[in-house]
Amino acid sequence: MDYVRLSMPVGETMFTQRSIRRFRPDPIPMDDIRLILEAASKAPNGGNRQIARFLVVTDRALIREFGALYHEAWWAKRWDERRWTKLEDIPPEDKSYRAAAELADEMKDAPCVVLALAVPPGGANSVIPACQNLMLAARALGIGSVPTTLHAKVMDRFHTLFGIPKDTSFHFAIPLGYPRGAFGGSRRLPTSATTFVNRWGTAPAWT
Amino acid sequence: MDYVRLSMPVGETMFTQRSIRRFRPDPIPMDDIRLILEAASKAPNGGNRQIARFLVVTDRALIREFGALYHEAWWAKRWDERRWTKLEDIPPEDKSYRAAAELADEMKDAPCVVLALAVPPGGANSVIPACQNLMLAARALGIGSVPTTLHAKVMDRFHTLFGIPKDTSFHFAIPLGYPRGAFGGSRRLPTSATTFVNRWGTAPAWT
Repeated sequence: MDYVRLSMPVGETMFTQRSIRRFRPDPIPMDDIRLILEAASKAPNGGNRQIARFLVVTDRALIREFGALYHEAWWAKRWDERRWTKLEDIPPEDKSYRAAAELADEMKDAPCVVLALAVPPGGANSVIPACQNLMLAARALGIGSVPTTLHAKVMDRFHTLFGIPKDTSFHFAIPLGYPRGAFGGSRRLPTSATTFVNRWGTAPAWT
Repeated sequence: MDYVRLSMPVGETMFTQRSIRRFRPDPIPMDDIRLILEAASKAPNGGNRQIARFLVVTDRALIREFGALYHEAWWAKRWDERRWTKLEDIPPEDKSYRAAAELADEMKDAPCVVLALAVPPGGANSVIPACQNLMLAARALGIGSVPTTLHAKVMDRFHTLFGIPKDTSFHFAIPLGYPRGAFGGSRRLPTSATTFVNRWGTAPAWT
């Protein structure tokens, strides 16, 4: 596979990745989807057993049905966590949840959704590194993404909708699309607060 | 953080990453470790709750003690899977396990080991994307790595060795070092065999 189009410096790619939840309707060229998936396949995985599988959803009717399941799952998680049932329950200052609620409404209109799955014996350790490669490659092509999850109450219908075998595990649903709005940095704690040296609690010298 | 040194194209970085298990003894500059960890912090994580923590181990005595635990854990996993107890049990053609067995011997000599952990409520989804950023940033600086795991039988001693709280979960131990040998591609199934379009079992057009 010719990866010359993934020419963005890896630093710029990582430091300007952020969760994109608002997409323009333009479709993503299948050549780009292929390149993104080739990049995903190169990530480390346990024993090179290659249990990760990716289901690329571009069919509009399927994405609409998936969007309805995603909306139900998103609000089921909010009920579990906070007993929230509607947008008015989310504090206005909680911009992260507000943006995520907007995605729950808009998932049905995403140009493409990639489902990250694993065949038995499964294991997030061998799927999620590939998902990060996938999202970085997308970002290098100007395509936004965000890793999302579902909820137990929709999983049977989710498996049925796409004909996914019962023993195949779900890890992430990643909508892909050209962003409405811009890429740009993410807000993070300083690494001196999340990194220790040699012993838990010992801050690094760069504090 | 100035990420200009991470100038390798993201495509080259991902397509030439491979598991490095044989390291030269040269130490890794702390500035490089910091840059690698800054890159890790930029990966997506659930709700930006930032539960990932990284413990950077450079102390030689601690790495030797960790290496002994790692060796015990590696062979405990082989016993669980295959009832293997020694190198002679591994078929000579099984190069992947042979290389991993060699790492089990050599972990104690790694120049640096990064432990990827998570504070409650934990969750691999919010730690492993950061680990992949960490390994890609390392590769862009010429530093090799491989994600490894432990085994239940050593976890209490592991937590005690580094003073890690009981409620903090372990995800990966990632040795870092300059490779003996070269980077270069990994062998993977064609993406046409691991990707489906719109429905499980439907191969993509690039088959």
